Amino acid sequence: MACSISDIRAARERIAPYVVLTPLLRTVALDSALGCEVYVKAECMQITGAFKIRGAMNKALTLTPEQLAKGIVAASSGNHGRGISYAAKLLGARATIVMPRTSPQVKIEAIRSLGAEVILCDAPERFRIAEEVCAERGATMVPPFNDEDVMAGQGTVGLEIMEQAPEVDTVIVPVSGGGLIGGMSTAIKALAPGVRVYGAEPAAMPRYSQSLAAGKPVTVSYKATIADALAAQTPGAKCFPCVTSHVDGFAAVDDAYILKGMKLLLTEGKILAEPSSCIGLGALLQGLLPVRKGNKVCLVLSGGSVGLDQLRVLEDVTL
Amino acid sequence: MACSISDIRAARERIAPYVVLTPLLRTVALDSALGCEVYVKAECMQITGAFKIRGAMNKALTLTPEQLAKGIVAASSGNHGRGISYAAKLLGARATIVMPRTSPQVKIEAIRSLGAEVILCDAPERFRIAEEVCAERGATMVPPFNDEDVMAGQGTVGLEIMEQAPEVDTVIVPVSGGGLIGGMSTAIKALAPGVRVYGAEPAAMPRYSQSLAAGKPVTVSYKATIADALAAQTPGAKCFPCVTSHVDGFAAVDDAYILKGMKLLLTEGKILAEPSSCIGLGALLQGLLPVRKGNKVCLVLSGGSVGLDQLRVLEDVTL
Repeated sequence: MACSISDIRAARERIAPYVVLTPLLRTVALDSALGCEVYVKAECMQITGAFKIRGAMNKALTLTPEQLAKGIVAASSGNHGRGISYAAKLLGARATIVMPRTSPQVKIEAIRSLGAEVILCDAPERFRIAEEVCAERGATMVPPFNDEDVMAGQGTVGLEIMEQAPEVDTVIVPVSGGGLIGGMSTAIKALAPGVRVYGAEPAAMPRYSQSLAAGKPVTVSYKATIADALAAQTPGAKCFPCVTSHVDGFAAVDDAYILKGMKLLLTEGKILAEPSSCIGLGALLQGLLPVRKGNKVCLVLSGGSVGLDQLRVLEDVTL
Repeated sequence: MACSISDIRAARERIAPYVVLTPLLRTVALDSALGCEVYVKAECMQITGAFKIRGAMNKALTLTPEQLAKGIVAASSGNHGRGISYAAKLLGARATIVMPRTSPQVKIEAIRSLGAEVILCDAPERFRIAEEVCAERGATMVPPFNDEDVMAGQGTVGLEIMEQAPEVDTVIVPVSGGGLIGGMSTAIKALAPGVRVYGAEPAAMPRYSQSLAAGKPVTVSYKATIADALAAQTPGAKCFPCVTSHVDGFAAVDDAYILKGMKLLLTEGKILAEPSSCIGLGALLQGLLPVRKGNKVCLVLSGGSVGLDQLRVLEDVTL
């Protein structure tokens, strides 16, 4: 298995001084719309605005001084890059982040403000360009999901949920390449095998739904989605075995329902999270998961990097 | 004293089945901007969207079946009316809410959706009209703040803060007529006399700052403020003695800083609260209170009734 519960426990010890124990909230105001007892794990309130700092910091803390001196590089749609930039700054290293030019301005600015170099490119090119930068400089690439240390760091979210709300019976996780759900499902099933773990991915890029149907990782074509943080075309090779072993099912959610979820979370739950983070609410609103009244369902709000200008679109969304 | 710690403890027992134990969050993301260790008591996540349900429900539960049958009336800029409407609905009574016609649409609609009758009027007329309705119908007026049972209900927020975060050394409370700060300061000083309690009121209507300077309740003229829930012209006669006994100071906050506080809370803290609720952040941003680095400061976010259309103004606010 790519990462184990003991790796995740070790990650928690390692990153504890650098990350926030984010709140787990029982959000009663969302119950009637979502048809269950709703909890949220508010990683949108995490340092750097997203859970990504957990994996980034866990990985960065394994690098040698010589590796750090040559710099760290990441290909990222935003939140991973911000986590890496923050980790690099703390550890005195240079960070270079290769981002799709379609990334929200708020994410680009947050990374620049941490002192990182930003290279903008077309989304499908970002991994190739990041590898070129690494080759030129001898820098270390930190993958956004396909890495054991990164997965172990993200898995700490699962440890925390089971400690903060052991009564939860279902956890819904936003999915891109599978680093978060790979680590989290490993942690949750080790601690509480009866808890169901579901993934939610954009219907525009259903890489896990298609890969599970095929029995092996398949690559979907790049398509625009409001869930800009969930843009991986292929499951991580190291994430996929974790997911097939531990995850109970996937929902491929339409953008329209992601936006409904975001509006519901903001107007009723009073919490601001980025569209990608609201995909779990969207999955429930679209009726894609077997969740019933009485279930205690924890939605992972993976990040909160959203500009005020991005909220205007919600005015026309109907609930 | 108008309400005592034992009244407040009794109120908590009485209202517990009907209200939410709202989260108290340690919001690290706000520390650098506000210059202290920031906690928030998220009454914006309370049932009906504001702390007002606490006092409204505590009062309604003291009424006889005969009184309930003749209906309940409130003059309100919104949140008190919503609390009363919700309490009336639960108890099978008719509610009539007299509101300023300048109230945010989101508040008017929330009250109507609870089945209450809404009468719109000019803001300074709302108490007179509500009294006329009571006289005509034999209905019971529930005052928004100047009432012992209402104050005792609001005071439960103070009990909860001291239990949820006993390390807090300073509490900042949004102030209108003084029901919330009167009840809360009574609770807090009874439990922890060393904790400082400050009020924050709109600079446009500084009824407490002026009354404390005068040594008696004075009436300020009605002026528009972005803090629409903080529109009382005079301190409540029953609130004023509590406030003079227990409160350590007041800040009169400019609208511009209230909006900065709201933007900061939303974009960095990821929490949506109405402008009136953000006045404590505004007081700190404007430098009006003696709070220093290392202080553990709890800001009461009194309500969350804000429409998405109201967020556009934040786009032009600079932090």
